[in-house]
Amino acid sequence: MPPLTGPKSGDALFASVERVNAELFTLTYGAIVRQLLTDLEEVEEVNKQLDQMGYNIGTRLVDEFLAKSNVSRCVDFKETADVIAKLGFKMFLGVTATVTNWDAEGTSCSFVLEDNPLVDFVELPDTCQGLQYCNVLSGVIRGALEMVSMKTEVTWVRDMLRGDDAYEMRVKLTKQVPEEYPYKDDD
Amino acid sequence: MPPLTGPKSGDALFASVERVNAELFTLTYGAIVRQLLTDLEEVEEVNKQLDQMGYNIGTRLVDEFLAKSNVSRCVDFKETADVIAKLGFKMFLGVTATVTNWDAEGTSCSFVLEDNPLVDFVELPDTCQGLQYCNVLSGVIRGALEMVSMKTEVTWVRDMLRGDDAYEMRVKLTKQVPEEYPYKDDD
Repeated sequence: MPPLTGPKSGDALFASVERVNAELFTLTYGAIVRQLLTDLEEVEEVNKQLDQMGYNIGTRLVDEFLAKSNVSRCVDFKETADVIAKLGFKMFLGVTATVTNWDAEGTSCSFVLEDNPLVDFVELPDTCQGLQYCNVLSGVIRGALEMVSMKTEVTWVRDMLRGDDAYEMRVKLTKQVPEEYPYKDDD
Repeated sequence: MPPLTGPKSGDALFASVERVNAELFTLTYGAIVRQLLTDLEEVEEVNKQLDQMGYNIGTRLVDEFLAKSNVSRCVDFKETADVIAKLGFKMFLGVTATVTNWDAEGTSCSFVLEDNPLVDFVELPDTCQGLQYCNVLSGVIRGALEMVSMKTEVTWVRDMLRGDDAYEMRVKLTKQVPEEYPYKDDD
């Protein structure tokens, strides 16, 4: 049996992983969005592609997260949301999110980001007003949660690129199948 | 006049910039390559797009590099190459390169990378054997150097994804116009 240790702090977790320059990441992501806007005719199609790209990335990142964070099974969706906000965002983007706006059932909440490395230096031209620039992030959350057996719908309700005062991502748990966790507590 | 300080060390420089998780970057870059392979018919076209994308990124990154590194004007191409290898790669990717294989004129050299965060977990399928997966990096070098008035040709001569024992990028200076530097020593 491994030693019983609790989850790492977000700061310790972020310090423990390999990192690259955030501006390089931001510009690289911007290059994807520009490429998709050039290749696909409809902004709505670009939104879908970014979400799907994020989903694929999320299904991979969850493994690194579970391997490095020392987080074991979360008791419920509320704890899961808190782990994502405080540890998941920190481990991958270097920032934390606030969890808020829970519904009465405890199955819907919002992640609010004040600082979002994805959008540094970004301004949307008028022709892209329907663009959900950060859809890769909502896709990552959806993909990662699906790998731990939580089906979710994730949508953006506030977006600073569209003039809102923060980034707010709404996460709604639609189905949970706890027995299909891809990892065991005693791994 | 600003205080006269020398360039920062690569480690200090890397520690001074905002960073994100390297795996997130690697997977995001992989998603671009996959998208381009899907959208464009010819691998050669994908290579060109990656290079152009890197060029655009390089023309932006050079500003952050000059602003943060305390590097002032390099006396010649040899010093420039050394700064890129020891400080530039470190600042953006967290790794350093070795400068080697200089020609007699001092206008061509190689950057050799033993560790390349761009390619972690990457394997090329047989259908992509002509793909220059890391062309974004050679494009970044070309774009960044052009902003400090050095026109270059940058090509890959060794690639571990193709079975070589390292990544080796050949940089050939084709034209230098020192008086057009976009920054002044006393900025």
